[in-house]
Amino acid sequence: MVAEILCIGTEILLGNIVNTNATFISNELANMGISVYYQTVVGDNPDRLKSAIEIALSRSDIIITSGGLGPTYDDLSKEIAAKCFNREMKLHEESLEHIKNIFKKLDREMTENNIKQAFMPEGAYILKNSMGTAPGVAIEQDNKHIIMLPGPPKEMKNMFVKEVKPYLENMSNAVFLSHNIHVFGLGESYVESILKDKMESYTNPTIAPYAKESEVLLRVTASAKTEQEAEKKIAPVIEEIKNIIGEYIYGIDIESMQNAVVQKLISKGLTLATAESCTGGLISQMITQIPGSSEIFLGGVCSYSNSLKSNILGVSEETLEKYGAVSEQTALEMARGVRKITGSDIAISSTGIAGPGGSTEDKPVGLVYIAIDSENYGRVLELNLGRGYSNERTAIRYSASLNALNLILKTVEKL
Amino acid sequence: MVAEILCIGTEILLGNIVNTNATFISNELANMGISVYYQTVVGDNPDRLKSAIEIALSRSDIIITSGGLGPTYDDLSKEIAAKCFNREMKLHEESLEHIKNIFKKLDREMTENNIKQAFMPEGAYILKNSMGTAPGVAIEQDNKHIIMLPGPPKEMKNMFVKEVKPYLENMSNAVFLSHNIHVFGLGESYVESILKDKMESYTNPTIAPYAKESEVLLRVTASAKTEQEAEKKIAPVIEEIKNIIGEYIYGIDIESMQNAVVQKLISKGLTLATAESCTGGLISQMITQIPGSSEIFLGGVCSYSNSLKSNILGVSEETLEKYGAVSEQTALEMARGVRKITGSDIAISSTGIAGPGGSTEDKPVGLVYIAIDSENYGRVLELNLGRGYSNERTAIRYSASLNALNLILKTVEKL
Repeated sequence: MVAEILCIGTEILLGNIVNTNATFISNELANMGISVYYQTVVGDNPDRLKSAIEIALSRSDIIITSGGLGPTYDDLSKEIAAKCFNREMKLHEESLEHIKNIFKKLDREMTENNIKQAFMPEGAYILKNSMGTAPGVAIEQDNKHIIMLPGPPKEMKNMFVKEVKPYLENMSNAVFLSHNIHVFGLGESYVESILKDKMESYTNPTIAPYAKESEVLLRVTASAKTEQEAEKKIAPVIEEIKNIIGEYIYGIDIESMQNAVVQKLISKGLTLATAESCTGGLISQMITQIPGSSEIFLGGVCSYSNSLKSNILGVSEETLEKYGAVSEQTALEMARGVRKITGSDIAISSTGIAGPGGSTEDKPVGLVYIAIDSENYGRVLELNLGRGYSNERTAIRYSASLNALNLILKTVEKL
Repeated sequence: MVAEILCIGTEILLGNIVNTNATFISNELANMGISVYYQTVVGDNPDRLKSAIEIALSRSDIIITSGGLGPTYDDLSKEIAAKCFNREMKLHEESLEHIKNIFKKLDREMTENNIKQAFMPEGAYILKNSMGTAPGVAIEQDNKHIIMLPGPPKEMKNMFVKEVKPYLENMSNAVFLSHNIHVFGLGESYVESILKDKMESYTNPTIAPYAKESEVLLRVTASAKTEQEAEKKIAPVIEEIKNIIGEYIYGIDIESMQNAVVQKLISKGLTLATAESCTGGLISQMITQIPGSSEIFLGGVCSYSNSLKSNILGVSEETLEKYGAVSEQTALEMARGVRKITGSDIAISSTGIAGPGGSTEDKPVGLVYIAIDSENYGRVLELNLGRGYSNERTAIRYSASLNALNLILKTVEKL
């Protein structure tokens, strides 16, 4: 079975956005054992879109499109796919209800344009969109399938996993199961070099590494007739990997590091507070992203200016003068200070130089101190996160925050 | 003149790497006024590659490929392009010297395979590679051009700028120029409905809408012989748009809302502090993302628990009891409180229900209060950001933060 990916959007052709949708869909299909021979991008132009669909139909069994399901006049994917299969467009009442409900909840006027999103090719299978207005569709004719997904990555990914995967599994009579092993503290090429022979020789399950920002994800995928059988194939491989790099694994099938932290704190019944300087609120925002974080997170202080460090967190003027705001000592006093004023069990702090300005000879861009404080334990981490790129402020802040979260995890495991 | 991008590499089709080459080339071509109607990705397979080149030749004037110029047996781009134009492959002595020199410098043995990289289609124009072994080539026949670049992004980009651009400039004599109008507070379909006739009827400049998370971007693009002429064409159209939705435009050609806020505060010499509950540090993290924000941002308190709201920010117990933590009154007292303890000119606060838990009958998920406080001005915004999706916590927090930033902008404009 051969699939082809067709992404629709002039903004991709203008180079305004990177086509990560194609990457995601390709990857998912590869994990399911479905070959992809072509990816195509075409703009919001009816003739060219029609021609692209026709070419794809001539050489592939399944065409998965993304984009062009929006409410505006140049969103024409469904209409053109319907034409390729000689289908009429018909109002799909259930989808109209879905869209109406969204506008009702938003307390906003629904425009005529939005009704267009509820028109579907005759005989289409509707793919529900739980994250936006535009439903997806799948239409089939002479064993050729066109599956159309919305363009916004969040909506597309959610729809792929929840609606398209089961649809494709039905066609291939196999179940594909993946587990994701989350690794922090090792580079991708290092992980690859120590697992190389396994990655190359294993075929079912397969092991594939993915570099995420400051992390590595190892995906173990098996195919089998049932989910149980697939699980049985995967389990020993995960054990093998754990035996080799277990101490760097912070979770399996967990959404994110912050998720692991919140779960761990809840399970231990411990509360947390933050005192952030260079990360500017990023640590607290990552933690509070997680539903239920209010159970363990008391709050934090973003002490961007020195006066806040001393006035609110109680960092001593002497420390600030003698060692500077970016120092082990300040980091520790920040953590202690926020633990004191919030009464939390654990406190984490950050202070550093995110750049591009603010560096000195002793303290380069990327120097960050992360401190943790609890009743019987305190520790400071010194990190050098600068790589000398011109635009690395965001990367430094993100990496510092991940290191802080990882330090919480490692510490709490010991408590 | 229409160009088409053809990226060659199985790793893109497997979803192992994101196709940033296509983004880069598209963007460069758009800036040069060359239209791109299609991007295609194909694997290292001779038949499919040949077919992809033939399709591209049938519909475009210029085909720019990347990848497949390496030394290994499956690197076949040049050979197949030569076949499409009925050319023989010939050894190019200068390129062989170039490759030999690189191996000499590296002090490494040159393999037979590498000699293959010096074979070029007859009559080809050679594009020098100053960052790797594989030279690029351009071949022309009947006004159709095939330009072949190496796959590694660094080599490709360098070759594009130094070799391909001059090659193309010779062929084209127009400039393309775009300006981006940033709109907040109106939905994409609404913006479209009121600008519909202009979007449909204008051809130079064109107006195109792009939905960003909680925002709309309007791109106005003109082509002309010179940049100045293009500017002249765009200016009146931007004025027209301003006349219609001016109050919702927060910037033109600006990177982000937080950028606009930081710039505006710097220009007015005003300082800012934050008091965040439901946004959990997101507002402060967005502001501190911007280099130079330390000039205007003093810091913030993330008062996630009620005790922090009263102990640190001084929200009265009475207010919390009578109106609750999610209320207009609490929002205002949070903003006043953080302004008091930090001494900032302006303070912004957020309190709300980001969900999925925590809602009551009166206070649904998505209810958020944003308050702003300055010496002579205070205001509270009530927002209903819930759409009833299962997974909208992140979207609610993000939208609340953008609303907060927008409120700062609007307020500071009046000060």
